[in-house]
Amino acid sequence: MKFTYKTQIRLHDTDAAGILFFANQFKILHDAYEHVLEKMGFSFNQMLTKRSYFLPIVHAESDYKKPLFVGDKVVVTVNVAHIGTTSFSFAYQLHNLKKQLVGSGKTVHVTINKKTRAKITLPAECRQALLKFSGKA
Amino acid sequence: MKFTYKTQIRLHDTDAAGILFFANQFKILHDAYEHVLEKMGFSFNQMLTKRSYFLPIVHAESDYKKPLFVGDKVVVTVNVAHIGTTSFSFAYQLHNLKKQLVGSGKTVHVTINKKTRAKITLPAECRQALLKFSGKA
Amino acid sequence: MKFTYKTQIRLHDTDAAGILFFANQFKILHDAYEHVLEKMGFSFNQMLTKRSYFLPIVHAESDYKKPLFVGDKVVVTVNVAHIGTTSFSFAYQLHNLKKQLVGSGKTVHVTINKKTRAKITLPAECRQALLKFSGKA
Amino acid sequence: MKFTYKTQIRLHDTDAAGILFFANQFKILHDAYEHVLEKMGFSFNQMLTKRSYFLPIVHAESDYKKPLFVGDKVVVTVNVAHIGTTSFSFAYQLHNLKKQLVGSGKTVHVTINKKTRAKITLPAECRQALLKFSGKA
Repeated sequence: MKFTYKTQIRLHDTDAAGILFFANQFKILHDAYEHVLEKMGFSFNQMLTKRSYFLPIVHAESDYKKPLFVGDKVVVTVNVAHIGTTSFSFAYQLHNLKKQLVGSGKTVHVTINKKTRAKITLPAECRQALLKFSGKA
Repeated sequence: MKFTYKTQIRLHDTDAAGILFFANQFKILHDAYEHVLEKMGFSFNQMLTKRSYFLPIVHAESDYKKPLFVGDKVVVTVNVAHIGTTSFSFAYQLHNLKKQLVGSGKTVHVTINKKTRAKITLPAECRQALLKFSGKA
Repeated sequence: MKFTYKTQIRLHDTDAAGILFFANQFKILHDAYEHVLEKMGFSFNQMLTKRSYFLPIVHAESDYKKPLFVGDKVVVTVNVAHIGTTSFSFAYQLHNLKKQLVGSGKTVHVTINKKTRAKITLPAECRQALLKFSGKA
Repeated sequence: MKFTYKTQIRLHDTDAAGILFFANQFKILHDAYEHVLEKMGFSFNQMLTKRSYFLPIVHAESDYKKPLFVGDKVVVTVNVAHIGTTSFSFAYQLHNLKKQLVGSGKTVHVTINKKTRAKITLPAECRQALLKFSGKA
Protein backbone atom coordinates (compact mmCIF):
# COMPACT_ATOMS: atom_id res chain seq x y z
CA MET A 1 0.00 0.00 0.00
CA LYS A 2 1.09 3.51 -0.62
CA PHE A 3 -0.45 6.57 0.97
CA THR A 4 -0.41 10.09 -0.28
CA TYR A 5 -1.43 13.26 1.50
CA LYS A 6 -2.21 16.46 -0.34
CA THR A 7 -1.66 19.88 1.14
CA GLN A 8 -0.93 23.46 0.23
CA ILE A 9 1.68 25.88 1.55
CA ARG A 10 -0.09 28.51 3.64
CA LEU A 11 1.17 31.98 4.51
CA HIS A 12 1.95 30.91 8.08
CA ASP A 13 4.20 28.14 6.70
CA THR A 14 6.46 30.73 5.07
CA ASP A 15 8.88 33.23 6.56
CA ALA A 16 10.33 36.63 5.63
CA ALA A 17 12.77 34.97 3.20
CA GLY A 18 9.65 34.30 1.12
CA ILE A 19 9.62 30.49 1.22
CA LEU A 20 8.57 27.58 3.43
CA PHE A 21 10.27 27.89 6.83
CA PHE A 22 12.28 24.65 7.13
CA ALA A 23 10.78 23.59 10.48
CA ASN A 24 7.32 23.74 8.95
CA GLN A 25 8.21 20.95 6.52
CA PHE A 26 8.30 18.74 9.63
CA LYS A 27 4.75 19.85 10.46
CA ILE A 28 3.69 18.78 6.97
CA LEU A 29 5.43 15.40 7.40
CA HIS A 30 3.56 14.89 10.67
CA ASP A 31 0.24 15.95 9.13
CA ALA A 32 0.83 13.24 6.50
CA TYR A 33 1.73 10.74 9.22
CA GLU A 34 -1.47 11.54 11.16
CA HIS A 35 -3.45 11.17 7.95
CA VAL A 36 -1.88 7.74 7.32
CA LEU A 37 -2.42 6.59 10.90
CA GLU A 38 -6.08 7.52 10.57
CA LYS A 39 -6.33 5.53 7.35
CA MET A 40 -4.75 2.61 9.25
CA GLY A 41 -7.39 2.96 11.96
CA PHE A 42 -5.21 4.67 14.58
CA SER A 43 -6.68 8.03 15.42
CA PHE A 44 -4.35 10.26 17.39
CA ASN A 45 -7.13 11.25 19.71
CA GLN A 46 -7.80 7.61 20.66
CA MET A 47 -4.10 7.05 21.12
CA LEU A 48 -3.81 10.04 23.43
CA THR A 49 -6.86 9.19 25.50
CA LYS A 50 -7.49 5.44 25.31
CA ARG A 51 -4.31 3.53 24.56
CA SER A 52 -1.57 2.79 27.13
CA TYR A 53 1.32 3.71 24.88
CA PHE A 54 2.76 6.65 22.95
CA LEU A 55 4.83 6.68 19.75
CA PRO A 56 7.21 9.61 20.34
CA ILE A 57 9.71 10.68 17.73
CA VAL A 58 13.37 10.13 18.69
CA HIS A 59 14.89 11.28 15.40
CA ALA A 60 13.68 13.40 12.51
CA GLU A 61 15.34 14.71 9.39
CA SER A 62 14.44 16.62 6.25
CA ASP A 63 16.03 17.54 2.96
CA TYR A 64 15.02 20.59 0.96
CA LYS A 65 15.42 20.37 -2.82
CA LYS A 66 13.39 23.28 -4.15
CA PRO A 67 11.88 26.36 -2.52
CA LEU A 68 8.16 26.21 -1.75
CA PHE A 69 6.09 29.39 -1.96
CA VAL A 70 2.71 30.34 -0.47
CA GLY A 71 -0.07 28.68 -2.44
CA ASP A 72 2.13 25.84 -3.76
CA LYS A 73 0.37 22.50 -3.76
CA VAL A 74 2.34 19.54 -2.45
CA VAL A 75 1.76 15.79 -2.54
CA VAL A 76 3.40 13.85 0.28
CA THR A 77 4.06 10.14 -0.26
CA VAL A 78 4.43 8.13 2.93
CA ASN A 79 6.17 4.76 3.31
CA VAL A 80 7.12 2.56 6.24
CA ALA A 81 10.94 2.61 6.11
CA HIS A 82 11.72 0.18 8.94
CA ILE A 83 9.94 -1.95 11.54
CA GLY A 84 12.13 -2.86 14.54
CA THR A 85 11.48 -4.42 17.95
CA THR A 86 10.75 -1.23 19.89
CA SER A 87 10.82 1.25 17.04
CA PHE A 88 9.71 1.98 13.50
CA SER A 89 10.33 4.69 10.96
CA PHE A 90 8.47 6.44 8.17
CA ALA A 91 9.94 7.97 5.02
CA TYR A 92 8.32 10.87 3.19
CA GLN A 93 8.71 12.42 -0.22
CA LEU A 94 7.23 15.77 -1.23
CA HIS A 95 6.45 16.47 -4.87
CA ASN A 96 5.00 19.58 -6.46
CA LEU A 97 2.27 19.44 -9.12
CA LYS A 98 4.96 19.24 -11.83
CA LYS A 99 5.94 15.94 -10.14
CA GLN A 100 9.32 17.36 -9.15
CA LEU A 101 10.80 16.16 -5.88
CA VAL A 102 10.84 19.27 -3.68
CA GLY A 103 11.77 17.69 -0.36
CA SER A 104 12.00 14.50 1.64
CA GLY A 105 12.12 13.43 5.25
CA LYS A 106 12.15 10.69 7.83
CA THR A 107 10.78 10.21 11.34
CA VAL A 108 11.91 7.48 13.76
CA HIS A 109 9.46 6.51 16.47
CA VAL A 110 9.74 4.37 19.59
CA THR A 111 6.90 2.82 21.54
CA ILE A 112 6.81 3.77 25.21
CA ASN A 113 4.53 3.12 28.15
CA LYS A 114 2.41 6.23 28.57
CA LYS A 115 2.87 6.41 32.36
CA THR A 116 6.41 5.23 32.97
CA ARG A 117 7.71 6.51 29.61
CA ALA A 118 9.82 3.30 29.45
CA LYS A 119 10.49 1.78 26.03
CA ILE A 120 8.22 -1.18 25.25
CA THR A 121 8.04 -3.78 22.49
CA LEU A 122 5.86 -2.66 19.59
CA PRO A 123 2.28 -3.54 20.57
CA ALA A 124 0.86 -6.34 18.35
CA GLU A 125 -1.89 -4.13 16.86
CA CYS A 126 0.74 -1.57 15.99
CA ARG A 127 3.14 -4.06 14.36
CA GLN A 128 0.27 -5.63 12.40
CA ALA A 129 -0.86 -2.27 11.10
CA LEU A 130 2.69 -1.33 10.07
CA LEU A 131 3.20 -4.68 8.30
CA LYS A 132 -0.11 -4.30 6.52
CA PHE A 133 0.75 -0.75 5.54
CA SER A 134 4.17 -1.79 4.23
CA GLY A 135 2.53 -4.52 2.15
CA LYS A 136 4.11 -7.35 4.15
CA ALA A 137 0.93 -8.64 5.80
CA MET B 1 -21.87 33.74 -2.39
CA LYS B 2 -20.78 31.82 0.65
CA PHE B 3 -17.47 30.05 0.97
CA THR B 4 -16.62 27.18 3.22
CA TYR B 5 -13.23 25.75 4.01
CA LYS B 6 -12.78 22.29 5.50
CA THR B 7 -9.88 21.38 7.72
CA GLN B 8 -8.87 19.07 10.51
CA ILE B 9 -7.17 19.77 13.84
CA ARG B 10 -3.63 18.41 13.67
CA LEU B 11 -1.39 17.50 16.59
CA HIS B 12 0.69 20.65 16.11
CA ASP B 13 -2.49 22.75 16.50
CA THR B 14 -2.99 21.43 20.04
CA ASP B 15 -1.06 22.09 23.25
CA ALA B 16 -0.36 20.25 26.50
CA ALA B 17 -3.84 21.16 27.81
CA GLY B 18 -5.05 18.67 25.19
CA ILE B 19 -7.01 21.04 22.94
CA LEU B 20 -6.54 23.54 20.12
CA PHE B 21 -4.08 26.25 21.21
CA PHE B 22 -6.09 29.47 20.91
CA ALA B 23 -3.60 31.27 18.64
CA ASN B 24 -3.84 28.42 16.15
CA GLN B 25 -7.53 29.18 15.54
CA PHE B 26 -6.25 32.39 13.93
CA LYS B 27 -4.07 30.29 11.61
CA ILE B 28 -7.17 28.34 10.61
CA LEU B 29 -9.09 31.57 9.96
CA HIS B 30 -6.26 32.79 7.74
CA ASP B 31 -6.08 29.46 5.90
CA ALA B 32 -9.80 29.89 5.15
CA TYR B 33 -9.19 33.49 4.06
CA GLU B 34 -6.37 32.41 1.70
CA HIS B 35 -8.65 29.69 0.32
CA VAL B 36 -11.39 32.24 -0.34
CA LEU B 37 -9.00 34.73 -1.91
CA GLU B 38 -7.82 32.01 -4.26
CA LYS B 39 -11.42 31.23 -5.21
CA MET B 40 -11.86 34.95 -5.89
CA GLY B 41 -8.82 34.90 -8.15
CA PHE B 42 -6.36 36.56 -5.75
CA SER B 43 -3.50 34.20 -5.11
CA PHE B 44 -1.32 35.24 -2.18
CA ASN B 45 1.80 34.49 -4.15
CA GLN B 46 0.77 36.89 -6.92
CA MET B 47 -0.10 39.51 -4.35
CA LEU B 48 3.28 39.20 -2.67
CA THR B 49 5.26 39.27 -5.90
CA LYS B 50 3.26 41.11 -8.54
CA ARG B 51 0.83 43.56 -7.00
CA SER B 52 1.77 46.98 -5.58
CA TYR B 53 -0.29 46.65 -2.44
CA PHE B 54 -0.64 44.52 0.67
CA LEU B 55 -3.71 43.75 2.78
CA PRO B 56 -2.29 43.60 6.31
CA ILE B 57 -4.47 42.77 9.28
CA VAL B 58 -4.92 45.62 11.77
CA HIS B 59 -7.34 43.85 14.10
CA ALA B 60 -8.21 40.21 14.75
CA GLU B 61 -10.45 38.49 17.26
CA SER B 62 -11.70 35.02 18.06
CA ASP B 63 -14.26 33.40 20.31
CA TYR B 64 -13.95 29.83 21.54
CA LYS B 65 -17.21 27.98 22.23
CA LYS B 66 -16.19 24.34 22.48
CA PRO B 67 -12.83 22.61 22.85
CA LEU B 68 -11.35 21.14 19.67
CA PHE B 69 -9.25 17.96 19.89
CA VAL B 70 -6.67 16.44 17.55
CA GLY B 71 -8.43 14.80 14.59
CA ASP B 72 -11.57 16.93 14.90
CA LYS B 73 -12.94 18.02 11.54
CA VAL B 74 -13.98 21.64 11.21
CA VAL B 75 -15.92 23.57 8.58
CA VAL B 76 -15.12 27.28 8.39
CA THR B 77 -17.72 29.59 6.83
CA VAL B 78 -16.32 32.87 5.52
CA ASN B 79 -18.29 36.08 4.91
CA VAL B 80 -17.37 39.63 3.99
CA ALA B 81 -18.44 41.59 7.09
CA HIS B 82 -17.66 45.12 5.95
CA ILE B 83 -16.27 46.99 2.93
CA GLY B 84 -14.91 50.46 3.75
CA THR B 85 -12.83 53.04 1.87
CA THR B 86 -9.39 51.83 2.89
CA SER B 87 -10.36 48.71 4.80
CA PHE B 88 -12.53 45.61 4.77
CA SER B 89 -13.28 42.82 7.19
CA PHE B 90 -14.09 39.12 7.08
CA ALA B 91 -16.18 37.14 9.57
CA TYR B 92 -15.66 33.44 10.20
CA GLN B 93 -17.66 30.72 11.88
CA LEU B 94 -16.30 27.30 12.76
CA HIS B 95 -18.62 24.32 13.04
CA ASN B 96 -17.85 20.72 13.91
CA LEU B 97 -19.37 17.79 11.99
CA LYS B 98 -22.35 17.77 14.38
CA LYS B 99 -23.02 21.29 13.02
CA GLN B 100 -22.33 22.84 16.42
CA LEU B 101 -20.72 26.27 16.47
CA VAL B 102 -17.29 25.68 18.03
CA GLY B 103 -15.74 29.06 17.41
CA SER B 104 -15.90 32.31 15.48
CA GLY B 105 -13.62 35.13 14.47
CA LYS B 106 -13.02 38.32 12.57
CA THR B 107 -10.12 39.92 10.72
CA VAL B 108 -9.93 43.59 9.73
CA HIS B 109 -7.64 44.43 6.82
CA VAL B 110 -6.35 47.70 5.40
CA THR B 111 -4.89 48.26 1.97
CA ILE B 112 -1.41 49.76 1.96
CA ASN B 113 1.19 50.63 -0.62
CA LYS B 114 3.75 47.84 -0.58
CA LYS B 115 6.76 50.16 -0.59
CA THR B 116 5.71 53.16 1.48
CA ARG B 117 3.36 51.13 3.72
CA ALA B 118 0.97 54.12 3.56
CA LYS B 119 -2.77 53.43 3.64
CA ILE B 120 -4.41 53.55 0.20
CA THR B 121 -7.97 53.44 -1.11
CA LEU B 122 -9.13 49.88 -1.81
CA PRO B 123 -7.89 49.08 -5.34
CA ALA B 124 -10.80 48.71 -7.81
CA GLU B 125 -10.09 45.04 -8.54
CA CYS B 126 -10.10 44.39 -4.83
CA ARG B 127 -13.38 46.24 -4.14
CA GLN B 128 -15.05 44.50 -7.09
CA ALA B 129 -13.99 41.09 -5.86
CA LEU B 130 -15.23 41.83 -2.34
CA LEU B 131 -18.57 43.12 -3.64
CA LYS B 132 -18.94 40.06 -5.82
CA PHE B 133 -18.05 37.80 -2.95
CA SER B 134 -20.54 39.52 -0.65
CA GLY B 135 -23.26 39.10 -3.28
CA LYS B 136 -23.55 42.85 -3.95
CA ALA B 137 -22.08 42.84 -7.46
CA MET C 1 2.32 45.58 40.20
CA LYS C 2 3.21 45.74 36.58
CA PHE C 3 4.90 42.96 34.65
CA THR C 4 6.89 43.23 31.50
CA TYR C 5 8.11 40.48 29.24
CA LYS C 6 10.89 41.01 26.71
CA THR C 7 11.13 39.08 23.50
CA GLN C 8 12.44 39.31 19.97
CA ILE C 9 10.76 38.60 16.64
CA ARG C 10 12.22 35.40 15.22
CA LEU C 11 12.22 34.31 11.60
CA HIS C 12 9.49 31.74 12.27
CA ASP C 13 7.26 34.55 13.60
CA THR C 14 7.31 36.27 10.21
CA ASP C 15 5.71 35.32 6.90
CA ALA C 16 6.40 35.90 3.21
CA ALA C 17 4.96 39.44 3.45
CA GLY C 18 8.12 40.17 5.46
CA ILE C 19 6.55 41.00 8.83
CA LEU C 20 5.15 39.35 11.94
CA PHE C 21 2.33 36.95 10.96
CA PHE C 22 -0.68 38.29 12.87
CA ALA C 23 -1.52 34.98 14.60
CA ASN C 24 1.98 34.89 16.07
CA GLN C 25 1.30 38.07 18.06
CA PHE C 26 -1.13 35.90 20.04
CA LYS C 27 1.70 33.47 20.77
CA ILE C 28 3.75 36.37 22.09
CA LEU C 29 0.83 37.52 24.28
CA HIS C 30 0.53 34.02 25.69
CA ASP C 31 4.29 33.77 26.29
CA ALA C 32 3.98 36.99 28.32
CA TYR C 33 0.98 35.55 30.18
CA GLU C 34 2.90 32.36 31.02
CA HIS C 35 5.81 34.48 32.19
CA VAL C 36 3.51 36.50 34.46
CA LEU C 37 1.77 33.41 35.83
CA GLU C 38 5.17 31.99 36.72
CA LYS C 39 6.08 35.22 38.51
CA MET C 40 2.77 34.90 40.40
CA GLY C 41 3.71 31.35 41.40
CA PHE C 42 1.42 29.50 38.95
CA SER C 43 3.57 27.36 36.72
CA PHE C 44 1.72 26.02 33.70
CA ASN C 45 3.21 22.60 34.21
CA GLN C 46 1.82 22.40 37.76
CA MET C 47 -1.54 23.61 36.51
CA LEU C 48 -1.64 20.96 33.81
CA THR C 49 -0.57 18.11 36.06
CA LYS C 50 -1.50 18.95 39.67
CA ARG C 51 -4.42 21.35 39.80
CA SER C 52 -8.07 20.37 39.24
CA TYR C 53 -8.90 23.30 37.00
CA PHE C 54 -7.93 24.86 33.68
CA LEU C 55 -8.03 28.51 32.58
CA PRO C 56 -9.01 28.24 28.90
CA ILE C 57 -9.30 31.30 26.72
CA VAL C 58 -12.83 32.07 25.50
CA HIS C 59 -12.02 35.30 23.68
CA ALA C 60 -8.86 36.85 22.30
CA GLU C 61 -8.15 39.96 20.28
CA SER C 62 -5.20 41.89 18.93
CA ASP C 63 -4.53 45.22 17.28
CA TYR C 64 -1.56 45.82 15.01
CA LYS C 65 -0.18 49.38 14.91
CA LYS C 66 3.21 49.02 13.25
CA PRO C 67 4.86 46.22 11.31
CA LEU C 68 7.35 44.08 13.22
CA PHE C 69 10.36 42.65 11.38
CA VAL C 70 12.67 39.73 12.17
CA GLY C 71 15.11 40.74 14.90
CA ASP C 72 12.89 43.49 16.32
CA LYS C 73 12.91 43.62 20.09
CA VAL C 74 9.56 43.96 21.82
CA VAL C 75 8.54 44.72 25.38
CA VAL C 76 5.14 43.36 26.41
CA THR C 77 3.38 45.02 29.36
CA VAL C 78 0.77 42.83 31.04
CA ASN C 79 -2.12 44.02 33.20
CA VAL C 80 -5.15 42.37 34.78
CA ALA C 81 -8.05 44.00 32.94
CA HIS C 82 -10.98 42.41 34.78
CA ILE C 83 -11.67 39.91 37.57
CA GLY C 84 -15.16 38.35 37.42
CA THR C 85 -16.88 35.47 39.20
CA THR C 86 -15.93 32.70 36.78
CA SER C 87 -13.66 34.64 34.46
CA PHE C 88 -10.82 37.14 34.27
CA SER C 89 -9.03 38.98 31.51
CA PHE C 90 -5.55 40.25 30.77
CA ALA C 91 -4.59 43.26 28.64
CA TYR C 92 -1.29 43.51 26.81
CA GLN C 93 0.64 46.30 25.16
CA LEU C 94 3.62 45.78 22.87
CA HIS C 95 6.25 48.49 22.52
CA ASN C 96 9.38 48.56 20.41
CA LEU C 97 12.71 49.83 21.75
CA LYS C 98 11.81 53.36 20.59
CA LYS C 99 8.91 53.08 23.09
CA GLN C 100 6.38 53.22 20.27
CA LEU C 101 3.18 51.21 20.72
CA VAL C 102 3.35 48.54 18.00
CA GLY C 103 0.43 46.39 19.06
CA SER C 104 -1.97 45.48 21.82
CA GLY C 105 -4.21 42.61 22.82
CA LYS C 106 -6.56 41.02 25.28
CA THR C 107 -7.33 37.48 26.45
CA VAL C 108 -10.46 36.48 28.38
CA HIS C 109 -10.18 33.32 30.48
CA VAL C 110 -12.74 31.21 32.30
CA THR C 111 -12.07 28.72 35.05
CA ILE C 112 -13.34 25.21 34.36
CA ASN C 113 -13.18 21.85 36.09
CA LYS C 114 -10.45 19.86 34.38
CA LYS C 115 -12.52 16.66 34.11
CA THR C 116 -16.07 17.83 33.49
CA ARG C 117 -15.00 21.02 31.63
CA ALA C 118 -17.86 22.80 33.48
CA LYS C 119 -17.40 26.45 34.41
CA ILE C 120 -16.45 26.95 38.07
CA THR C 121 -16.06 29.94 40.38
CA LEU C 122 -12.53 31.34 40.33
CA PRO C 123 -10.55 29.24 42.82
CA ALA C 124 -9.52 31.29 45.89
CA GLU C 125 -5.77 30.94 45.20
CA CYS C 126 -6.37 32.17 41.68
CA ARG C 127 -8.50 35.17 42.73
CA GLN C 128 -5.96 36.13 45.40
CA ALA C 129 -3.10 36.01 42.91
CA LEU C 130 -5.02 38.11 40.40
CA LEU C 131 -5.96 40.70 43.05
CA LYS C 132 -2.38 40.85 44.22
CA PHE C 133 -1.16 41.20 40.67
CA SER C 134 -3.63 43.99 39.95
CA GLY C 135 -2.46 45.82 43.09
CA LYS C 136 -5.78 45.36 44.91
CA ALA C 137 -4.57 42.93 47.58
CA MET D 1 34.23 30.63 20.69
CA LYS D 2 31.20 28.88 21.97
CA PHE D 3 27.74 30.37 21.98
CA THR D 4 24.85 29.43 24.17
CA TYR D 5 21.23 30.45 23.84
CA LYS D 6 18.79 30.17 26.74
CA THR D 7 15.09 29.61 26.22
CA GLN D 8 12.05 28.10 27.88
CA ILE D 9 9.45 25.68 26.55
CA ARG D 10 6.19 27.59 26.06
CA LEU D 11 2.69 26.15 25.88
CA HIS D 12 2.57 26.65 22.11
CA ASP D 13 5.72 24.51 21.78
CA THR D 14 3.91 21.51 23.27
CA ASP D 15 1.15 19.30 21.87
CA ALA D 16 -1.67 17.16 23.24
CA ALA D 17 0.80 14.38 24.11
CA GLY D 18 1.97 16.81 26.80
CA ILE D 19 5.53 17.41 25.60
CA LEU D 20 7.50 19.50 23.10
CA PHE D 21 6.16 18.85 19.56
CA PHE D 22 9.19 17.53 17.67
CA ALA D 23 9.02 20.11 14.85
CA ASN D 24 9.24 22.90 17.41
CA GLN D 25 12.72 21.75 18.45
CA PHE D 26 13.76 22.92 14.98
CA LYS D 27 12.31 26.35 15.74
CA ILE D 28 14.42 26.46 18.90
CA LEU D 29 17.54 25.45 16.93
CA HIS D 30 16.86 28.26 14.47
CA ASP D 31 16.24 30.78 17.26
CA ALA D 32 19.68 29.82 18.61
CA TYR D 33 21.16 30.16 15.12
CA GLU D 34 19.63 33.65 14.69
CA HIS D 35 20.96 34.60 18.12
CA VAL D 36 24.47 33.44 17.13
CA LEU D 37 24.33 35.20 13.76
CA GLU D 38 23.43 38.41 15.54
CA LYS D 39 26.36 37.98 17.92
CA MET D 40 28.55 37.48 14.83
CA GLY D 41 27.20 40.72 13.37
CA PHE D 42 24.82 39.20 10.80
CA SER D 43 21.32 40.35 11.56
CA PHE D 44 18.65 38.41 9.72
CA ASN D 45 16.83 41.58 8.86
CA GLN D 46 19.92 43.03 7.15
CA MET D 47 20.44 39.77 5.31
CA LEU D 48 16.88 39.74 4.05
CA THR D 49 16.88 43.36 2.96
CA LYS D 50 20.44 44.45 2.21
CA ARG D 51 22.61 41.51 1.24
CA SER D 52 22.57 39.82 -2.17
CA TYR D 53 22.58 36.28 -0.83
CA PHE D 54 20.50 33.94 1.28
CA LEU D 55 21.61 31.02 3.47
CA PRO D 56 18.79 28.51 3.03
CA ILE D 57 18.76 25.21 4.87
CA VAL D 58 19.10 22.12 2.63
CA HIS D 59 19.19 19.54 5.40
CA ALA D 60 18.09 19.50 9.04
CA GLU D 61 17.97 16.81 11.67
CA SER D 62 17.16 16.43 15.34
CA ASP D 63 17.45 13.80 18.03
CA TYR D 64 15.20 13.71 21.06
CA LYS D 65 16.68 12.22 24.25
CA LYS D 66 14.28 13.32 27.00
CA PRO D 67 10.77 14.77 26.95
CA LEU D 68 10.52 18.52 27.46
CA PHE D 69 7.49 19.96 29.28
CA VAL D 70 5.96 23.44 29.34
CA GLY D 71 8.06 25.73 31.51
CA ASP D 72 11.26 23.67 31.15
CA LYS D 73 14.34 25.80 30.72
CA VAL D 74 16.79 24.79 28.03
CA VAL D 75 20.33 25.86 27.17
CA VAL D 76 21.28 25.45 23.52
CA THR D 77 24.98 25.20 22.67
CA VAL D 78 25.83 26.12 19.08
CA ASN D 79 28.96 25.10 17.16
CA VAL D 80 30.11 25.42 13.56
CA ALA D 81 30.26 21.79 12.43
CA HIS D 82 31.63 22.26 8.92
CA ILE D 83 32.70 25.03 6.52
CA GLY D 84 32.64 24.00 2.84
CA THR D 85 32.95 25.86 -0.46
CA THR D 86 29.27 26.65 -0.99
CA SER D 87 27.88 25.34 2.29
CA PHE D 88 28.35 25.23 6.04
CA SER D 89 26.67 23.48 8.91
CA PHE D 90 25.86 24.14 12.55
CA ALA D 91 25.52 21.58 15.35
CA TYR D 92 23.33 22.13 18.38
CA GLN D 93 23.03 20.51 21.77
CA LEU D 94 20.15 21.11 24.17
CA HIS D 95 20.64 20.64 27.90
CA ASN D 96 18.17 21.07 30.74
CA LEU D 97 19.07 22.87 33.97
CA LYS D 98 20.30 19.57 35.45
CA LYS D 99 22.89 19.63 32.63
CA GLN D 100 21.37 16.53 31.05
CA LEU D 101 21.46 16.30 27.26
CA VAL D 102 17.80 16.45 26.21
CA GLY D 103 18.22 16.80 22.46
CA SER D 104 20.57 17.67 19.64
CA GLY D 105 20.40 18.78 16.05
CA LYS D 106 22.13 19.93 12.91
CA THR D 107 21.36 22.35 10.07
CA VAL D 108 23.17 22.40 6.72
CA HIS D 109 23.07 25.70 4.83
CA VAL D 110 24.06 26.67 1.30
CA THR D 111 24.75 30.15 0.03
CA ILE D 112 22.64 31.21 -2.94
CA ASN D 113 22.17 34.33 -5.00
CA LYS D 114 19.02 36.02 -3.75
CA LYS D 115 17.59 36.67 -7.20
CA THR D 116 18.64 33.69 -9.30
CA ARG D 117 18.60 31.26 -6.34
CA ALA D 118 21.77 29.71 -7.85
CA LYS D 119 24.38 28.28 -5.49
CA ILE D 120 27.35 30.62 -4.93
CA THR D 121 30.71 30.37 -3.18
CA LEU D 122 30.53 31.38 0.48
CA PRO D 123 30.88 35.19 0.51
CA ALA D 124 34.17 36.27 2.14
CA GLU D 125 32.49 38.10 5.02
CA CYS D 126 30.47 34.98 5.71
CA ARG D 127 33.47 32.60 5.64
CA GLN D 128 35.47 34.95 7.86
CA ALA D 129 32.68 35.13 10.41
CA LEU D 130 32.30 31.34 10.44
CA LEU D 131 36.05 30.80 10.84
CA LYS D 132 36.16 33.33 13.64
CA PHE D 133 33.18 31.69 15.30
CA SER D 134 34.73 28.23 15.02
CA GLY D 135 37.93 29.57 16.61
CA LYS D 136 40.00 29.11 13.44
CA ALA D 137 40.51 32.81 12.64
